[in-house]
Amino acid sequence: MSRLRSHLEETFQALKAKLRSIHHLRDTAALLSWDQETYMPPGGGEARAEQLATLHTLAHEAFISPEVESLLAAFMDPATGTLHEPIASSWEEAPKALLRETWRDFHRAKKLPPAFVAELERTCALAQQAWIQAKQHNAFTEFLPHLRTIVRLKREEADYLGYTETRYDALLDTYEPHMTTSRLLPLFSTLREQLTALLARIQDSSHRPDTSFFCQAFPPTQQLEVSRHILTAMGYDFAKGRLDISAHPFTTSFHPTDVRITTRLDERNPTVCLFSVLHEGGHALYEQGLPSEEYGTPLAEPVSLGIHESQSRLWENCVGRSQDFWQAYFPVLQQAFPTQLRNCSPEAWFRAVNFVQPSLIRVDADEVTYNLHIILRFELERALIEEDLPVEELPVQWQAKMQEYLGVRPAGDADGVLQDIHWAHGAFGYFPTYTIGNLCAAMLYRQACCDLPTLTRDIAQGQLLPLTHWLNTRVHRWGRQLSADELMTRITGHPISPEPFIRYLQEKYQYVYTL
Amino acid sequence: MSRLRSHLEETFQALKAKLRSIHHLRDTAALLSWDQETYMPPGGGEARAEQLATLHTLAHEAFISPEVESLLAAFMDPATGTLHEPIASSWEEAPKALLRETWRDFHRAKKLPPAFVAELERTCALAQQAWIQAKQHNAFTEFLPHLRTIVRLKREEADYLGYTETRYDALLDTYEPHMTTSRLLPLFSTLREQLTALLARIQDSSHRPDTSFFCQAFPPTQQLEVSRHILTAMGYDFAKGRLDISAHPFTTSFHPTDVRITTRLDERNPTVCLFSVLHEGGHALYEQGLPSEEYGTPLAEPVSLGIHESQSRLWENCVGRSQDFWQAYFPVLQQAFPTQLRNCSPEAWFRAVNFVQPSLIRVDADEVTYNLHIILRFELERALIEEDLPVEELPVQWQAKMQEYLGVRPAGDADGVLQDIHWAHGAFGYFPTYTIGNLCAAMLYRQACCDLPTLTRDIAQGQLLPLTHWLNTRVHRWGRQLSADELMTRITGHPISPEPFIRYLQEKYQYVYTL
Repeated sequence: MSRLRSHLEETFQALKAKLRSIHHLRDTAALLSWDQETYMPPGGGEARAEQLATLHTLAHEAFISPEVESLLAAFMDPATGTLHEPIASSWEEAPKALLRETWRDFHRAKKLPPAFVAELERTCALAQQAWIQAKQHNAFTEFLPHLRTIVRLKREEADYLGYTETRYDALLDTYEPHMTTSRLLPLFSTLREQLTALLARIQDSSHRPDTSFFCQAFPPTQQLEVSRHILTAMGYDFAKGRLDISAHPFTTSFHPTDVRITTRLDERNPTVCLFSVLHEGGHALYEQGLPSEEYGTPLAEPVSLGIHESQSRLWENCVGRSQDFWQAYFPVLQQAFPTQLRNCSPEAWFRAVNFVQPSLIRVDADEVTYNLHIILRFELERALIEEDLPVEELPVQWQAKMQEYLGVRPAGDADGVLQDIHWAHGAFGYFPTYTIGNLCAAMLYRQACCDLPTLTRDIAQGQLLPLTHWLNTRVHRWGRQLSADELMTRITGHPISPEPFIRYLQEKYQYVYTL
Repeated sequence: MSRLRSHLEETFQALKAKLRSIHHLRDTAALLSWDQETYMPPGGGEARAEQLATLHTLAHEAFISPEVESLLAAFMDPATGTLHEPIASSWEEAPKALLRETWRDFHRAKKLPPAFVAELERTCALAQQAWIQAKQHNAFTEFLPHLRTIVRLKREEADYLGYTETRYDALLDTYEPHMTTSRLLPLFSTLREQLTALLARIQDSSHRPDTSFFCQAFPPTQQLEVSRHILTAMGYDFAKGRLDISAHPFTTSFHPTDVRITTRLDERNPTVCLFSVLHEGGHALYEQGLPSEEYGTPLAEPVSLGIHESQSRLWENCVGRSQDFWQAYFPVLQQAFPTQLRNCSPEAWFRAVNFVQPSLIRVDADEVTYNLHIILRFELERALIEEDLPVEELPVQWQAKMQEYLGVRPAGDADGVLQDIHWAHGAFGYFPTYTIGNLCAAMLYRQACCDLPTLTRDIAQGQLLPLTHWLNTRVHRWGRQLSADELMTRITGHPISPEPFIRYLQEKYQYVYTL
């Protein structure tokens, strides 16, 4: 019996070692991508694409290998994931979660035939090139044939993966495990109703924050200095990370000890960099807060994209667009830009960064209108995957929905249906995770304020670490031990729901726009 | 017959594709190393070591796999490398060279048992840590047990690899294929005799170049600007490369379209950066000049470390320490540092950068004494591998030989036997390639001056591209089609020999020191 247990323990360690080595491949691929976006010379692109393909293929092959299958079989029925006895009844939750989540990934990965994966990857690689061109030419028709193929392949993918209720669920589940359309529909419907109502009241208000001080010269060096200052205050560990510049801000992790952020810079508007850094800083704290000792296993992986986004949105919006935060950090900003911000105040700055205006571009949207952009995409991609919406009708549908939800109409495809790269990546089911992130951010921040009675006072004094530590212990260190809903329920007492987010917005904008 | 040929052609393409994918792994590992030396946050070191080990192991396993063996077997007897007919008699030289060199690498790699490779790697990883500490503590005894193990393992390695004449040859062959001790001995003996004679005459001379203008403040930004200017003039393509800062200068290639240089900076002496950049620029032109279309195969790999070093030394010394070069580029330097170099001239600068002085540290040595440092190391490492020199006697032997060849004695181990990391890496047989590089550089430069009658005049006018193009067509584009000796013979009419180098030094120093 004890010899059996020790053999099982050895096999468990062997499984973890195998998972670690596969993760090294994935994280090496992540470094190839980071380098591509930051320091790679322009001529290196073609070879880099091949290197990335090689690494991804190897990691995929290593994961669905007979070796991993036979390691898993020591613990479970590899066809169903049912744990053997005495593991099921006597092992602790953490190693059982490791096995459960590894099986989940393995089982999903095995369902996709390698030839299909290769075809999808090739199609998306070409589609991304076409998307860049089509966007430059403001011409959806150039992208149309590629998108048509992708939609066909994504439907096939959903059928390979399988689903209980709707085909779209199979894709959604890739980014937000266990989430379903039937859970999202009522949630998004409440949200849309409440947000359009709030937006109408804001648009009727005679108050308008003054945003005139954004449009001046803000030297990049000082912008980055303030950014580093804020990141350090958040608890982002520069000994285990760095901040660089790229065209689109992102966070990438090669290990919890090497988590890097990029930001973009607009010399005429420092909020672009500041809010990028708060956002990516939130993502990065999650990655730095995952348990190093479990590296390579699901216990050191984020729960879902929605929970990941909750971390970035919490810092960017709940904290970074709060009165408390700017009470402490506006003076820092003013010290960096004394001339530019001479006639501004913490209060005026707080109001300015909460300016609301329906606009065409999702990534530039304010907190009120942002989720309407998401709901629009969610509805359209569901229609493509489930209701046979002809792909060529997308631009017209896009225009109609923009008019209906936001009251604005894109002049062309570049500002409309072509603005996001996600569909060219084949990332159907990804967009909803942005909104899930916003909802969870508000739920978590509300709970943090309950658990830490001095939190807002701390923030107003520049002390951000209490919040970071709260997030570390409540969210980060758990990895994938719980699902997103389970995690939110354990922390806040409720599964993912829209009410705290709506209340948060109502309270803030009642104040800012004197509603 | 034609169907057979087309099947063979397909197999040949499959072999090349397999080699390319293995090279992607190696080049990805090279990016991991580059990042480690340039941008990686300090906390990332431990995970990085594991990632590197994973990548190296995978590349090694993929190369010695049954798949590669069976691909090779379509063309040759995999035990001997003898090509099948009709390949041997009717294929062109380039594809035959590809097969020959691939077999050579494969055959060597297969000889080393994986457990032995792993033991050697582990030992060297620990030895490098110990070497860093021992050097800091100026205490060879701390490094001694590690070096003892490494020497034992390197002897074993030589026995696994096999050799015709001496055990040391097996190790030398790793870095300089086909080179043997019996070839090196007379060559190094001539060299030692001539260099010590030249050094004595220089030391007797009453002339001394004035080097006083080195010791001033030279801001890094301008140093890097001049460096970029020179690199561009050399034909280094910044669209396919970049220049960064690191503790030790190096060149790394991830593909001929992405070849990166690093340099080190001394704010009090701009020659450190300038000559590093000329040196690494020479290496980088070789890598950028390899044929992209053959990437992954020996046809796009450098011939040997000696030939690689000939490219760096040619640019650093034959060009970079010439009167012609500074006639064109001293004005550029003076423009960058007008105050510091107000009282200097092209001629005075040329003399200053050719200052000769026996010193303790190899990497700081001048052109005359440099090879004496190498000969000393060559003799000691041969004695360790072949003559059972007890490892603990190294420091005493080192001191004695330094005294004999250079007339200086290190005060401690840090300035003596512990100064280079090579032995801690297990790189026995590496040092001679530095001297081979110096000899080949002089041979090549002499030949270039014959082939291009206006070469020195071009250089004096700042035109460096004619030389780059000559090197491209004579050296770079051939990859490993010829051995080092064959290549040198084809270009210059002679195999590797010391006379052109000795004559080059004699002519230069007769002038500089008015001998």
